[in-house]
Amino acid sequence: MKNFAIAIHGGAGTILRSLMTPEKEAQYTNALQNAIDAGYTILDEGGSSLDAVEAAVMSMENFPLFNAGKGAVFTNKGLHEMDAAIMDGKTLEAGAVSGISSVQNPVHLARIIKEKSGHVMLSGGEAAKFAKKMNLPFQPDEYFYTEERFQQWTAVKDSDTYQLDHSDKTEKGEKKFGTVGAVAIDIKGNLAAATSTGGMTNKRYGRVGDSPIIGAGTYANNNTCAISCTGHGEFFIRAVVAYDISCLMEYKGLTLKAACDYVVKDKLVKMGGEGGLIAIDKDGNIELPFNSEGMYRAWKKEGEETVVKIYE
Amino acid sequence: MKNFAIAIHGGAGTILRSLMTPEKEAQYTNALQNAIDAGYTILDEGGSSLDAVEAAVMSMENFPLFNAGKGAVFTNKGLHEMDAAIMDGKTLEAGAVSGISSVQNPVHLARIIKEKSGHVMLSGGEAAKFAKKMNLPFQPDEYFYTEERFQQWTAVKDSDTYQLDHSDKTEKGEKKFGTVGAVAIDIKGNLAAATSTGGMTNKRYGRVGDSPIIGAGTYANNNTCAISCTGHGEFFIRAVVAYDISCLMEYKGLTLKAACDYVVKDKLVKMGGEGGLIAIDKDGNIELPFNSEGMYRAWKKEGEETVVKIYE
Repeated sequence: MKNFAIAIHGGAGTILRSLMTPEKEAQYTNALQNAIDAGYTILDEGGSSLDAVEAAVMSMENFPLFNAGKGAVFTNKGLHEMDAAIMDGKTLEAGAVSGISSVQNPVHLARIIKEKSGHVMLSGGEAAKFAKKMNLPFQPDEYFYTEERFQQWTAVKDSDTYQLDHSDKTEKGEKKFGTVGAVAIDIKGNLAAATSTGGMTNKRYGRVGDSPIIGAGTYANNNTCAISCTGHGEFFIRAVVAYDISCLMEYKGLTLKAACDYVVKDKLVKMGGEGGLIAIDKDGNIELPFNSEGMYRAWKKEGEETVVKIYE
Repeated sequence: MKNFAIAIHGGAGTILRSLMTPEKEAQYTNALQNAIDAGYTILDEGGSSLDAVEAAVMSMENFPLFNAGKGAVFTNKGLHEMDAAIMDGKTLEAGAVSGISSVQNPVHLARIIKEKSGHVMLSGGEAAKFAKKMNLPFQPDEYFYTEERFQQWTAVKDSDTYQLDHSDKTEKGEKKFGTVGAVAIDIKGNLAAATSTGGMTNKRYGRVGDSPIIGAGTYANNNTCAISCTGHGEFFIRAVVAYDISCLMEYKGLTLKAACDYVVKDKLVKMGGEGGLIAIDKDGNIELPFNSEGMYRAWKKEGEETVVKIYE
């Protein structure tokens, strides 16, 4: 029997202390604690890491301050197009969805895609048809409306500079990659990873980030580790970040910490790729590296207290 | 100065000799030769591997017998939804598109996404809007109509078993993963890879295969190799095939041949993943492994004759 553990993130980026009120910090802290509890309870009862990461991510999808599910950012059209993925480290089976609207919990859809579609990745309105066929819960547009996201979109919606040159000048100082994710190891030593995101505010042209790309934003393999990323997705895709960490462990013999430090704090920095990730290895070691100013994150190992952090 | 070279594939699978007429074999052979010529000419004039793989893949997209561009298979709705990707091994910049309709050359769109969108991956009808804005050539539905593909679709369109259980019983013996792709090294030693596909006949729910997934179906890195895959895409995504070969070279010191053999003929076989790939390394070595009965393929090294093969 292995010691079980879970780690989660609620996004990395420039999280300015000057914009953070004690009330908001408490909200985030509570939300992270709730997500840890949702996953840990499953692990504690002998459940699977796959169920635990799905439950933890669903908890964050249902919380409006994270950019996933209910709190997803607005696209250029004023809609919500979400991406999610889940992977089982025991079987290497995976499910992913991109550009999905109206489905309450994209990570649950990713799980159902893994188990019922015969495919790994579905996308767009056609993926919603599959979700309907599988009787997944849908929500009206109002459910996904949050005042803060609407204001963020209103500030940039008539400009196209953000999408085309990644200028931050429209972002008023705060730059967040508000993806959520979870990684876990269960009592049987099985690893799993899940990620969910609303993507970039004002995104268009059906942009897909790294979250639903197996090997880039999400990966799990019982031989090595489970990884969920958050950051400037284009760089994470080009660097195949999640699988890179797995390969550095499997083929080069690096520890989880050495692999994470090399990829996040050296390779990605040299490319210009801002962000971070959470990682757990087959021995239950946890790493939560990031090269941005902060990352909403929390973890809990068997029998220990939950640790919640936002800044370095 | 490096010796330049190019390799291409037109899909792997169960290519039955009994269904192959001398006329059809000649058509395929000519099409592969034309694609090699399109890429090789560019390399021979000192052009880039990126231009060469794009030209070679566009040549195959324009040829109706390959499942990409003009010859793309029909989806469940009777449409053509194509995927493509391209990657530059020098800069690790990449472009990809999934579920694109009506664009004449999806690989060219992937190239323009890489260079003009600020993103790596766009999808669906929104990606078509980007292509329109970039003034890419579009074609009406008739352009993509081929009698053979229509008949293949007609035979399975009222069944949904194929999509959900990957049963081959509807496929009348011939099972082909008709993706096309190219890899090349240019005179400067820069590597590039490109892949394009129509996906699976009768596909639905916006299924995305491995072709447009950087690291799975397409990858290039000047430090190691360039790879383009063809096969049962779900397995290639789960195994992160293209980047796996790169990592086995970079982190474990394997030769291109050893890495290709291990991934295609051992790991993928154990998972049940049928297909193959083309690969070229930084020293100009070429490998074209497959675990299926055949793979349309060809290659040409500087100053040598073109080699065209279909079966083992």
